[in-house]
Order: sequence, then C-alpha cells, then structure tokens
Amino acid sequence: MSQTTIEDVLRAAVRIRPYIHHTPVMTCESLNRQVGAQVFLKCENLQKVGAFKFRGACNVVFALSGEQAQRGVATHSSGNHAQALSLAARLRGIPAYIVMPENAPAVKKAAVAGYGGQITFCAPTLQAREATLAQVIGQNGAVEVHPYDNDQIIAGQGTAALELIQQTGELDVVLAPVGGGGLLSGSAITTRALLPRARVIAAEPEMADDAYRSLQAGHIIPSVSPRTVADGLLTSLSPRTFAVIQRDVEQIVTVSEEAIIAAMRFVWERAKLLIEPSAAVPLGLLWERKIRLDGLRVGVILSGGNVDLERLPWQRSTA
Amino acid sequence: MSQTTIEDVLRAAVRIRPYIHHTPVMTCESLNRQVGAQVFLKCENLQKVGAFKFRGACNVVFALSGEQAQRGVATHSSGNHAQALSLAARLRGIPAYIVMPENAPAVKKAAVAGYGGQITFCAPTLQAREATLAQVIGQNGAVEVHPYDNDQIIAGQGTAALELIQQTGELDVVLAPVGGGGLLSGSAITTRALLPRARVIAAEPEMADDAYRSLQAGHIIPSVSPRTVADGLLTSLSPRTFAVIQRDVEQIVTVSEEAIIAAMRFVWERAKLLIEPSAAVPLGLLWERKIRLDGLRVGVILSGGNVDLERLPWQRSTA
Repeated sequence: MSQTTIEDVLRAAVRIRPYIHHTPVMTCESLNRQVGAQVFLKCENLQKVGAFKFRGACNVVFALSGEQAQRGVATHSSGNHAQALSLAARLRGIPAYIVMPENAPAVKKAAVAGYGGQITFCAPTLQAREATLAQVIGQNGAVEVHPYDNDQIIAGQGTAALELIQQTGELDVVLAPVGGGGLLSGSAITTRALLPRARVIAAEPEMADDAYRSLQAGHIIPSVSPRTVADGLLTSLSPRTFAVIQRDVEQIVTVSEEAIIAAMRFVWERAKLLIEPSAAVPLGLLWERKIRLDGLRVGVILSGGNVDLERLPWQRSTA
Repeated sequence: MSQTTIEDVLRAAVRIRPYIHHTPVMTCESLNRQVGAQVFLKCENLQKVGAFKFRGACNVVFALSGEQAQRGVATHSSGNHAQALSLAARLRGIPAYIVMPENAPAVKKAAVAGYGGQITFCAPTLQAREATLAQVIGQNGAVEVHPYDNDQIIAGQGTAALELIQQTGELDVVLAPVGGGGLLSGSAITTRALLPRARVIAAEPEMADDAYRSLQAGHIIPSVSPRTVADGLLTSLSPRTFAVIQRDVEQIVTVSEEAIIAAMRFVWERAKLLIEPSAAVPLGLLWERKIRLDGLRVGVILSGGNVDLERLPWQRSTA
C-alpha cells in the first residue's frame, strides 16, 4: 500500500526545486474551442529529460542518505526513467547503474550514456532484466529505484499537479495519462488535498487498457503485449499506484489511437507544443468527448515530449 | 525615421497585456554545453498565432482611436502578420482586410480566414498586392498596417525583449533574427534602455543577407529573390527599422543553412521546443560560434513556431 501523503509531495517539491524546471502552463484558445472546455496544459514536455519522470527520480536521489547515495542507484529501464535517474544521479554526483535490453534503440542507449548512466546490457526478457539488475545490485550495493512502485517516486511525480494548481488556481478536473500509475497517483494525492471537489480522471489508450480493466475488476490486471502509439503507457499498475487510484481517481477513460494522434497533431500545429503520444492521450479523451466536460476548467498534465522526429505518427500511414 | 522609444514599448506592454501570452523563458543545459554560452530562450513560438507578430499587431489595433477602429485595419501579407492582424482585430471586434496572392498556400488562407480576416485575393506580384490593397482601403477607409515599417508595430515587438529581460535579469547579449527588422529594432530599443551595457546582435541567413549588407553599406539594400529555409526572413529592411538598427545593433552575423537546420533540430529534440527555421537562425549563430560568446548570458528571442509538419527541413534531403 502506498504511504504517500500530500506532506510527502510538498517535501518533494522543496527538495527537487533547485534541480527541476518549473514548467509553464499554457492555454490555447483554438484547443478550447475544439474540445469545448477551458484547458490548462502543464508542460512537462519542457521538463528536463523531456518528461515528468525527472521529478520522481530527483526526489528519490536527493532523499537518499549520504551512506545510501555513495552506493548509487540502479534500475532496469529503456525509457525515460533510465534517463531521468541517470541525470538526477549525476546532479548529486553518484553513480546510476542502468540495465537495458541489448536490443534497445541506439538513441535511447546514447541518451542514458549522455546523462552519465552506467549501462549493463542484458537479453531482452523481463527475467534477464531482473536477474541482471539483481547481479548489478549484488556487486555494488546500489539502491534499486522502481519507475513507479516507490513512494518517493509517486511523491515526486505529484509535484507536477502541485505546480499546475498553484499556477492556475481552481480547477474542476485534473486529467493525467496512466501507464504504471506513478504520475496518476501522485496527481491524485495532490489534487485531493488542494482541490477536494475537483475530479481526477485518467486517460488510457484503448489498445493498452489494463488500468481501466483493473479498476473495473478491483484487482490489478497485467498489461499483456499492448500495441499503442502511446509507447510510454505500456506498463502495468503496481500495488502502490493501484491503491491510490482506487481511492482517489474518479474514473479511467479509454481513448482511440485516432483521437490520440489527432489531438497530438492539433497541439503541435496550434499550440506549438512538442508532445509525445502518451501526453496526447488525455487530450484525446477531450477530443472524443466521451465524457461531458463542457465549459469546465480542466488541468492536463502533458507528460513528456520524447518522440522520434524521423517517424511522427501522422507520417506513418503515408510512409 | 523611427520615433519609437522605450516609453512606447512600456505603453505597448500595458496595452496588449490582456490579449497576449506572457511566454515562458526556457533554458536547456545540453544546448548550453553545445554552444558554450548560458542561453535563455524567450518562447514566442508559444505566443498566440505562433509568433511574436501578434504583439505588434495587437499594439496597433488596440492603439487605434474609436473612429479609426470602426473602419478596420488592412494589410497585404501571406504570412504571420496577416494572421496576427486578423486575430487582434477580432479581439477588438473590428474588421481586418487581408490582401493575399491567389497562389498562397491553402493552409495560410485557411489560417487567416480562421482568425476572421476578410481576404481579397490578387495576382502574385508586389504591384498587384499594393494596387489591390489601395483599392480595398479606398473602399472602406481601413487603416493600413505595415508588417514592420510602423512605430506601433516596432513598439509591440519590443515587448518580447522587455518580458525576457524582466524574466532573466542581467544579460550580456540579446540575439534576435532579422528579416524586415521589426523584432530586431524593438528588441534593440528595449535592451538599450534596460541593459545599456548589453550587446544586441542580429542573426541573418547567409542566403538572405540583405540586412548584413545594408549595415555594411550604410543604406538599405533590398532583398532580391532570397532562398533560405528561414522563410520568415525574406523581406527587406525599412527606413524605420534600419535607422534603429544602425543606432542600436552592434552587428549582424550571417548563418549557414546547415547551422540553422542543425540548431533547429537540436532544439526540437533536446529542448522540446517546436520552433520555425527563422527562430533557429540566432541559435545557428551560436551553433557556428562565428563570434565569441563563451560563458556569456545570452537572451534569444525565438520568433515563432509556424512550420509545415509534413515537410520538416531535416526530412527534405531524405525525401
């Protein structure tokens, strides 16, 4: 069960303040007209490492005791978490050991190495990743940092919603995407504390709807081979994040691939915000108008901006 | 000769405040490392209409007397100025008459119409544009608004540097791109007033170096059929902007097409800022390190973010 409280989020905000970007909140009148709500976009695509993940990683790294820190941090990840943890560790001057599958894209390997992460490659299976991580930790005693099943990670991710609400004032709804649930549970804890009457709603790709089904079922249903353009949302919920989501999230709404891509492109063209498909999922929810949010003040956490510029989703069909 | 003073810029800032976005200033450590300076990016790509042009257009429109405003505003333009003037006029509830060449891209026609501009098409020559504009103005008495040879436009564009300096504090250098010179002269007037010791440097594409040559020659040399990826910088200086530039700009530095594209792509990938090629020209200056700015605090006005997402510069060579 998650122990994370609003006090943890507030302490995280103080702790990570010197290291993170205080990202802007943007509005776009053509987007408002398009979706019929008053939308406030919290631009975590402009966060360091290009994603909110840096908040949680920073919070973990700077919360370590001196003795823990000396041993460094470790994780297995090929995505934004690996980059975020590597940069956070570099800023504290400690090692980050990253286990990555040997077939990870070259650009991701380069990014982790660029942030100073020490990479150990492994076979591309979950078993190999976990075994290799255990081996790395056995060698150097590094602190394992799970990308979301970690109270300090959840508290760190919650600082995005904290800033958002402090920047916008009253909101009727806070929307976030859900993958493993770190951002969503942090956002929910924060929103419940600051805006008790606001609704927290999560958006999930239809093609990776394990969190939606988990909430329906009342227990975690793992994500199995999901195929969605929102490649940041492929992971399954964890016990910590699921507990918060059950308690504090009103509902999870699924979004079609078409709506994700259409909303993403609209935001690139009209708001000039370079967001990744996962960040467009909550916008896709607004786009499809599956639930009525007309005229409401809706805060949206834009989770990140890490996209392959050679292969944009709207170009795939024509390629 | 331009009569624009810092007082005009300050009054413009007050006048347009309810209508514009107060755009963020972003920093990017990997960019700093790449270019060897401490760079502050003023994100006018996130301005309404996707460009700084909205500042000047708003200032003109809201400075009109009631009697002038009733008659509306008019310009010939197929670019950002037409969109900016259309939206500013709509916000004041007055007509904007836009003369556009009939062969303008459909997307630009749609954008102007979308902001409520009333379009009159003409043959694609400067003579036809000017004749048609004179005719439109003759019919309805609208106030002509030149895109940059206009004191209120220059004052409005100067508010971007005003915000930048108020957001960053001391700067050693302010960099802006130069096309017709509206943004550059406004930035120069503001910087000279607020930071008398700061250097104002302009960046211009090598392939459209008329402003550079004009400053060398001491008189305006018109831009003739320039070919550059920075399609917002094709115009020639005007008497008003040239006078300010001669007085307040330290130097104009030309930038290669390769550096413009490389810097643009870097900023998309690393800073997640969706900027247009014209906005990348000052970054290209830093990229090429033609002048020594090592370790200095450099403010850069990112002029806009209006790009064709189907045809990105780094994709052209592979297409």
